[in-house]
Amino acid sequence: MPVGTNATVKSMNQDELKELGAEIILSNTYHLYLRPGYEIIRQLGGVHKFMNWQGPILTDSGGFQVFSLSPLRKITDEGVEFRSHLDGSPHFLTPELVMEIQGALGSDIAMAFDECTPYPATYEYALKSLQLTTKWAGRCKESLEAGKRGSAEVQKVKNTEIASSSASELPNFRTSMLPSLFAIVQGGVYPDLRKQSAEELIEMDFEGYAIGGLSVGEPKALMYEMINHTTPLLPEGKPRYLMGIGDLLDVLEAVSAGIDMFDCVMPTRNARNGTLFTSTGRISIKREEFKADPNPLDPNCGCYTCRNHSRAYLRHLFMNREILSMRLNTMHNLHFYLEFFRKMREAISKKGFDKFRKEQTPILRNNFHEE
Amino acid sequence: MPVGTNATVKSMNQDELKELGAEIILSNTYHLYLRPGYEIIRQLGGVHKFMNWQGPILTDSGGFQVFSLSPLRKITDEGVEFRSHLDGSPHFLTPELVMEIQGALGSDIAMAFDECTPYPATYEYALKSLQLTTKWAGRCKESLEAGKRGSAEVQKVKNTEIASSSASELPNFRTSMLPSLFAIVQGGVYPDLRKQSAEELIEMDFEGYAIGGLSVGEPKALMYEMINHTTPLLPEGKPRYLMGIGDLLDVLEAVSAGIDMFDCVMPTRNARNGTLFTSTGRISIKREEFKADPNPLDPNCGCYTCRNHSRAYLRHLFMNREILSMRLNTMHNLHFYLEFFRKMREAISKKGFDKFRKEQTPILRNNFHEE
Repeated sequence: MPVGTNATVKSMNQDELKELGAEIILSNTYHLYLRPGYEIIRQLGGVHKFMNWQGPILTDSGGFQVFSLSPLRKITDEGVEFRSHLDGSPHFLTPELVMEIQGALGSDIAMAFDECTPYPATYEYALKSLQLTTKWAGRCKESLEAGKRGSAEVQKVKNTEIASSSASELPNFRTSMLPSLFAIVQGGVYPDLRKQSAEELIEMDFEGYAIGGLSVGEPKALMYEMINHTTPLLPEGKPRYLMGIGDLLDVLEAVSAGIDMFDCVMPTRNARNGTLFTSTGRISIKREEFKADPNPLDPNCGCYTCRNHSRAYLRHLFMNREILSMRLNTMHNLHFYLEFFRKMREAISKKGFDKFRKEQTPILRNNFHEE
Repeated sequence: MPVGTNATVKSMNQDELKELGAEIILSNTYHLYLRPGYEIIRQLGGVHKFMNWQGPILTDSGGFQVFSLSPLRKITDEGVEFRSHLDGSPHFLTPELVMEIQGALGSDIAMAFDECTPYPATYEYALKSLQLTTKWAGRCKESLEAGKRGSAEVQKVKNTEIASSSASELPNFRTSMLPSLFAIVQGGVYPDLRKQSAEELIEMDFEGYAIGGLSVGEPKALMYEMINHTTPLLPEGKPRYLMGIGDLLDVLEAVSAGIDMFDCVMPTRNARNGTLFTSTGRISIKREEFKADPNPLDPNCGCYTCRNHSRAYLRHLFMNREILSMRLNTMHNLHFYLEFFRKMREAISKKGFDKFRKEQTPILRNNFHEE
């Protein structure tokens, strides 16, 4: 899932996302809650209509952002008190409000409100934290089900509203009126706590399960251990989603363990910083050596950027901080990622994942090795 | 002509420019000379190939930028000594070098090197300045003709080079190997000096004539007087180009006087600042009133932005400084301008310019009045 924090995948328009083959995007509850506000998006018919994206949208719970962006926060059983990173205004998020917000946003997949356990955390803290996440997941589910019970009526009213909206209004592309709910497994780096979290959540029966609280500073070996330990605990017949992981070597490891879904800002953020992924390894486009290079970024790539422009032009745009630089770079990196996932799905469906992994590993090492 | 300073019309890609109906773009000699450098662009096959734009390109002379951007400059008969606004490095531009650069860039229309006479300037200064511009125009012409005499051979060599270039290189879209040369009429705000400048340049027989040194701080009435005085002095059968004027009320006045060509950053720069031109007047998209406005920016507009997005979304993108904001705004403003010019050309060809002007004036007043 490309990440569209503010209801826009940075620098792309929605037609380009579609052409790139993005089938679902992620948007951030926390950001949209603060700006423009969920009541405004509700009024405008949800995020799909707001941004004019016709595919599915997953919204995160806001938990991760509250913990990573908000300067002052206080966690209680009831919810989280925090201050906006934009203007310092005070806010209080509860599981019920987070469901209300994601309902207003019109998400296809909503994430249950969780505490993203930091690293390092003591065993005691991680235990308390996962118990809170379990409790909150339950409240999210109840809250959503209460909503669903009244939803037939709500949906009827909303459809009428849409049908009677003025001709100058844009069409509504929301694909569902109430979201599927995924819960998030926490438990820090403690295998038995991961197991406890997974079991408690599975007991409550969600429509999908995510693994959260990884890639937050822990060593990679520990992250792999947690992925390999936790994924098989989750039902195979439901989507399994590893949150925020984008290094494609990690993705291979996670897919091998059984993970189905990913989101990450890596392709888009790196693109804007001039770091590009290619079939021969990572390229920093600002390098002097590309100054007069007439070749495409990646001769083996079929994306718009590589079909139309030279490395010299891409370097020139980057050095001048031109907007087109961010566009062309983002286009390329998203293509690299989405193409990787397409090929991987194909390999899996043909029972060829191990071969795929073996083939891709050296290419990915050249792109994702530590510098 | 949309302005593509750094070989990119800010935020647009070249397919979008084509779809918008841009038939020619302007690029800046001064900027491309400093970065990436004209030898690099020559090596890469010219600006058309460099930026992958298949239509004609006009390059300005660099004169205006030297005078408006460079902190330290010294004008002699020979040329202009100045320091780069980027890194302070010293440079020396002569008419011959400016022709050499525009030749290397592969411009379809090159502008003769001129001194853009500032406002205010004494009569004596304006006279000396226009005489220098005349002398430089002559040197530009001679230099280009010397190039043309050798051009058959040059072109043969270049075509061979292109034919033998590696398959992975992108195609060359240059539409001409040597540019048409336009001279620039100066003379400040003194009618007799404008006349003298025009006559001296016409005597030398250029392929087109531009009026420079206007909209540099003089009162609008004085600018109109100069336009109405100077334009009829220029040959009707050749392109007449008013440089840097973009207020469409001014454009109507100038077209009425006989002007054929314009360039201006107004549509693109205003777009990035959130100022949008519409059929009902100028809109500042950041205004609170658009927060939940589901309507398109301009219900009478058929551009991509108005077909796909609401004012609320455009405001949201702008408030978040999203790249897509600049893209969608630029798309709209360029469409507004190019559509205006298309309609005006149609009106002229049907002998309906006066009616067009009368119809457009109130709309333009709502867009271009002083605040």
